[in-house]
Amino acid sequence: MRATLIHGAHDIRVEEVPDPVLLTDTDAVVRVVAACVCGSDLWPYRGVTHGSGRIGHEFVGVVEEVGAGVAKVAPGDFVIAPFYICDMECVNCRNGFSTSCLRGGWWGEEDRDGHLADGGQGERVRVPLADGTLCVVPRAIDESLVPHLLTLSDVMGTGHHAAVSAGVGPGDTVVVAGDGAVGLCGVIAASRLGASRIVMMSRNPARQELAREFGATDIVEERGDEGVAAVRALFDGIGADRALECVGSAEAMRQAIGATRPGGQVGLVGVPHLNPEIKMGPLFGRNVGVRGGVAPVRNYVDELLPEVLDGRIRPGRVFDLELPLAEAAEAYAAMDSRRAIKVLLRP
Amino acid sequence: MRATLIHGAHDIRVEEVPDPVLLTDTDAVVRVVAACVCGSDLWPYRGVTHGSGRIGHEFVGVVEEVGAGVAKVAPGDFVIAPFYICDMECVNCRNGFSTSCLRGGWWGEEDRDGHLADGGQGERVRVPLADGTLCVVPRAIDESLVPHLLTLSDVMGTGHHAAVSAGVGPGDTVVVAGDGAVGLCGVIAASRLGASRIVMMSRNPARQELAREFGATDIVEERGDEGVAAVRALFDGIGADRALECVGSAEAMRQAIGATRPGGQVGLVGVPHLNPEIKMGPLFGRNVGVRGGVAPVRNYVDELLPEVLDGRIRPGRVFDLELPLAEAAEAYAAMDSRRAIKVLLRP
Repeated sequence: MRATLIHGAHDIRVEEVPDPVLLTDTDAVVRVVAACVCGSDLWPYRGVTHGSGRIGHEFVGVVEEVGAGVAKVAPGDFVIAPFYICDMECVNCRNGFSTSCLRGGWWGEEDRDGHLADGGQGERVRVPLADGTLCVVPRAIDESLVPHLLTLSDVMGTGHHAAVSAGVGPGDTVVVAGDGAVGLCGVIAASRLGASRIVMMSRNPARQELAREFGATDIVEERGDEGVAAVRALFDGIGADRALECVGSAEAMRQAIGATRPGGQVGLVGVPHLNPEIKMGPLFGRNVGVRGGVAPVRNYVDELLPEVLDGRIRPGRVFDLELPLAEAAEAYAAMDSRRAIKVLLRP
Repeated sequence: MRATLIHGAHDIRVEEVPDPVLLTDTDAVVRVVAACVCGSDLWPYRGVTHGSGRIGHEFVGVVEEVGAGVAKVAPGDFVIAPFYICDMECVNCRNGFSTSCLRGGWWGEEDRDGHLADGGQGERVRVPLADGTLCVVPRAIDESLVPHLLTLSDVMGTGHHAAVSAGVGPGDTVVVAGDGAVGLCGVIAASRLGASRIVMMSRNPARQELAREFGATDIVEERGDEGVAAVRALFDGIGADRALECVGSAEAMRQAIGATRPGGQVGLVGVPHLNPEIKMGPLFGRNVGVRGGVAPVRNYVDELLPEVLDGRIRPGRVFDLELPLAEAAEAYAAMDSRRAIKVLLRP
């Protein structure tokens, strides 16, 4: 079968690889219906972090085979795979933080049994801990739902995590830093949690328009200190109740913290780039909380899936380019140059 | 009248100063019944930060005079003064964060009207924004309640803020870093909020004993990485649900963050010493939130005062030394050398 590999910076290739097989009795094999490229895939693509081998960690598909110990997933099921592997049984999974699963792992890396887990951008994937990792879509779906379901594997759940981590509730004012797919899904999340006003920080007209479609009420184009001042000016001069930080740079964190009112909270989901540091002074003096991290999207599927199935939320709108798997290299290039918000790949 | 002044590192003197008078119609003059020395007073005492002039920011007393614009406070009232000045009317005060009051200020510093605010360690204090700043104790009190009421001006409210900021709720497991007065009050706070287990990190037998009296269920004597490992070992190997950081050093923050389970939260109230930085990686990877800051104790008095008045909580037990005001220098020396947890001063 064919799958996407990264060989180094700016070197993405779709190549022949061995078909996956069941390696343990808790595995499943899934035929990928749709996969996509993540903003975090761009770090190794840009050479900022090292990456080699199978890549991709967001996919939906149909189960082809399951091991003898798999009870909740059966051949023929349409499933959503989160961007990580988890058992949904350990104490961290039960606490709602399956990204800290004690038996879990990451696509493209060695799993706890010592086997290499496949990447998601391929024709088929061996799924470890299938009963925990996979979420079965409980009814037959229309093809048009595929992009929306695919966002539950990462960006919609991650945007939701930003809003939950920031403590967004009814009536809150919210500012979103980051107009990528996660930030845009953060707008959906803030809206469905009852935010009264949602400010998107963006300079890109197409992304501004999508943000408004998702529920943003205001756009701020300024950045840095000017962006902070513009947001504060919208809210009594003190800032928004909640901020969603969906970039991961130190600059975006400073901006999100500065745009939040005393006693407010920042939800962090942008993967921290180069392990930035936060100065305690500006947090402490204004009682601004920071909370978030690697989003436990598997824990959120039960809450979000019904709204995707009935069309109440349409997060798949973040895909503005669809390509065949063979053109994965172009998918990366389009996202890297910000020609596309997010690219869907069809094996 | 006499008041305490700091002239430099290790140079505390009680001197004659002018009697306070009403300078604006929102002022009151309070005769101090009891004051105390704060852990944060030790920073200028040790020369770590610069300090000169009137010092002290925790006191209770009896109102002697009020300005024409003061409506909620009257001569003869027994009042609690928080460690800062606030109007309780601005948007930040109404949001519950009166330490960010738009018109507020700090004892010993210039207020918004350009007048120097008195320090609290003296015989009398001019209180700006008296209607907001002062909390009237609604009934006649017994002398034995004075130490307990005095803690509402800072340490009990600050310990409560640590627990609230950490999100402590019924059934939670909690670890407290810092066995000073604030950390000990944090134990009281966590207990009254329903924590199921409370671990105090302390090597001092007297403080361990007081922590147990306040509700601590476990003591951990190890520090640093060994302390983190000891706390994690108590809770499924993953850490406590909540941590209260009541020291303010980078080391204590790392310890508190490390001792918190994935998805847990750290309440920060230790005044950050030298504006330390927090690495984002360890927070993000484990979804540990940090929240807290300068405690809005004025906002908490309504909730805590009834429990002090009826003896349900006895935070004044943190005072293990009482001295006349004239011996303020000895009060500082005793706290600096950790001979005393907290010293009460009687003018």
